[in-house]
Amino acid sequence: MADPSPRKRRRPSSASDDSSAPFRNRLKPDSVILQTLRSLAAASATSSSANKTLTLADLDLSTSCREVTDQSLPAVQSSIESLILKIARSILAGEGFSFDVPSRSSGNQLYVPELDRIVLRDKNTLRPFAHMSSVRKSTITARILHLIHQLCLRDIHVTKRDLFYTDVKLFQDQSQSDAVLDDVSCMLSCTRSSLNVIASEKGVVVGRLIFSDNGDLIDCTKMGMGGKAIPPNIDRVGDMQSDALFILLVEKDAAYIRLAEDRFYNRFPCIIVTAKGQPDVATRLFLRKMKMELKLPVLALVDSDPYGLKILSVYGCGSKNMSYDSANLTTPDIKWLGIRPSDLDKYGIPEQCRLPMTEQDIKTGKDLLEEDFVKKNPGWVEELTLMVKTKQKAEIQALSSFGFQYLSEVYLPLKLQQQDWL
Amino acid sequence: MADPSPRKRRRPSSASDDSSAPFRNRLKPDSVILQTLRSLAAASATSSSANKTLTLADLDLSTSCREVTDQSLPAVQSSIESLILKIARSILAGEGFSFDVPSRSSGNQLYVPELDRIVLRDKNTLRPFAHMSSVRKSTITARILHLIHQLCLRDIHVTKRDLFYTDVKLFQDQSQSDAVLDDVSCMLSCTRSSLNVIASEKGVVVGRLIFSDNGDLIDCTKMGMGGKAIPPNIDRVGDMQSDALFILLVEKDAAYIRLAEDRFYNRFPCIIVTAKGQPDVATRLFLRKMKMELKLPVLALVDSDPYGLKILSVYGCGSKNMSYDSANLTTPDIKWLGIRPSDLDKYGIPEQCRLPMTEQDIKTGKDLLEEDFVKKNPGWVEELTLMVKTKQKAEIQALSSFGFQYLSEVYLPLKLQQQDWL
Repeated sequence: MADPSPRKRRRPSSASDDSSAPFRNRLKPDSVILQTLRSLAAASATSSSANKTLTLADLDLSTSCREVTDQSLPAVQSSIESLILKIARSILAGEGFSFDVPSRSSGNQLYVPELDRIVLRDKNTLRPFAHMSSVRKSTITARILHLIHQLCLRDIHVTKRDLFYTDVKLFQDQSQSDAVLDDVSCMLSCTRSSLNVIASEKGVVVGRLIFSDNGDLIDCTKMGMGGKAIPPNIDRVGDMQSDALFILLVEKDAAYIRLAEDRFYNRFPCIIVTAKGQPDVATRLFLRKMKMELKLPVLALVDSDPYGLKILSVYGCGSKNMSYDSANLTTPDIKWLGIRPSDLDKYGIPEQCRLPMTEQDIKTGKDLLEEDFVKKNPGWVEELTLMVKTKQKAEIQALSSFGFQYLSEVYLPLKLQQQDWL
Repeated sequence: MADPSPRKRRRPSSASDDSSAPFRNRLKPDSVILQTLRSLAAASATSSSANKTLTLADLDLSTSCREVTDQSLPAVQSSIESLILKIARSILAGEGFSFDVPSRSSGNQLYVPELDRIVLRDKNTLRPFAHMSSVRKSTITARILHLIHQLCLRDIHVTKRDLFYTDVKLFQDQSQSDAVLDDVSCMLSCTRSSLNVIASEKGVVVGRLIFSDNGDLIDCTKMGMGGKAIPPNIDRVGDMQSDALFILLVEKDAAYIRLAEDRFYNRFPCIIVTAKGQPDVATRLFLRKMKMELKLPVLALVDSDPYGLKILSVYGCGSKNMSYDSANLTTPDIKWLGIRPSDLDKYGIPEQCRLPMTEQDIKTGKDLLEEDFVKKNPGWVEELTLMVKTKQKAEIQALSSFGFQYLSEVYLPLKLQQQDWL
């Protein structure tokens, strides 16, 4: 249909092909930005291979700590059988039996700055069968060991919910079987993935990555806009190859969709990954595996609010309740690309797109300022202090006020060009 | 490690390779079950092509109804321009302007048994600009029309959240821009997908399906265990091909994972799809597209509780608040495979794996019994009546009490063999 307007059609002010979009004129040619990214990738590869990742064993900590490792199914099976054999001997000797269970309480968790993650102190508690207070829990422990042993024999994966339903009468509610599952993981010194118990997946990945999922080779440049669902079982993920220069970790689905549709990874070779909100175990494992195998820098795009930073910290340093497995679940050296509190003024985010922080937000922000993993990064402290002071937050989507594609066409390229990450 | 036990090792009672698992001995060879499925698929293909799907136009309803259709972007653009032109003329004639907006209130929704879905009666309300009570809403309407017009010009997709953030000052909160977006959809008589506004995706698909997502050809038999994330924009999905005999619609993620790992679709050729809980628009559109293009029967596996049936009904008959678009969002003739209330006794689900229904559950169940889409299926009424009478519910995962693979190895094959769907 012909344009009916008698006046000359004005460009819609928020269309992002408008060259007047804020900061668009500061953008240099892509070749310049790509050069910046190549240096970043090279530095990341060098530091990954030069400074061999520190482990607990490398440190001379005053307290000894407990960590779990990935183990093969036969190894897990054999550990369970040894444990049960020991118990059988104890019973036959007329001494009854107890499980020796690592304590996972919060008082037992420790942030280790050298490792930049939360670990679990090595302190056990006895769980005797012949005691009123622990008879149920030790029975549940035995039952979970039995179920895991079955999984080893059959080599299949199940969810925590499946596990719960195998004996509802005993477990009563799922929190009980879940908690003992973590205990068993610690007792056997193996990761929960090694037990073949998986969490439901919710992450997706798209971009310059090829990997195998359960034997099928997946090319993530050919996954359309929907992307590839991240597999729930990391032990069947392998053969990672990539020509990307960095990994872009995105907090939210909406930003992911924008970048996937614009095939941002073709303009700036990268792998785009999101857990669509709170990081789930499968996405955390997948991100770590990419970082370790491909030795790529990881840049994070999260909301400018305390939860954005908290999410970043879970990917980077781990969550407290799975501290025993932080070595396998965390991705070292994630850079905070944006949206940072200082970006709000720097990019002129309109007042109406900023949201006032609630009392709870401010409290969470202040609590984060006390956390060691924030303190050790002065840039982060500065940003977080600014957030708490201005009492303003903003979502990634707030950039849409400059046009729907401002994120992919101006904001991110400019951030990359200016190496503006912390 | 050698088996240390002096006694002969007993098979774990809940390992599902145990031939004593309930009903395993009733299973016939797969070839027999496959024959059953071939008949089902053939019947579905015949009925799909013979009885051309009824539309509103085919019916002689006493009330006229309003439905939207998929429209091309240029068509949407042109509709918007005509509408604005009409408004400009009205203003120039000194008459101000009003939007003529279809009413989407619940009183205006109607279940049409012949179509087996909820539709919207054709009744409009005026939204004048020059009236205190509607000046805000008509301004929002004009702004949304403007934004959609921009999307048409650029041919990109955005989320509802993006839309909200383009003018937070005007919209105030997202529910306001969302509601007007549905109004605009009705006003222009086009689907929300046609407006290029998409919802975040959460569904996954795996199995015997090949389709294109934004130009990339995807083979869902080669998507490992994670499966392919269902794309948020159905308009860029196409070229569907399949040698499946049916589509298995699964409510929950855990059951999906079990079937994906066991590659159930290789034993019984099928396409497995899940929205991981509440059906999202992207998954509903994708399911419908599969059903329409491939003419396959759809069998649903949901929890045995009122919400399982409700989820099934949303896929089948639509949700009330998107009744104007039910023709595009609903998948006709979905069969309720399980878990059905009568299955609990039939398969001997242990008492402790059944859960007592709450007061709210029972109320929801009773309300569903009053719904037309339940009433028209006597089998469903019978099942739901049984549920409300026994006051018991059960999740799909309850089958794990017979072994982790009971679902894929016994329950589903037996259901298919016995053609036990309603």
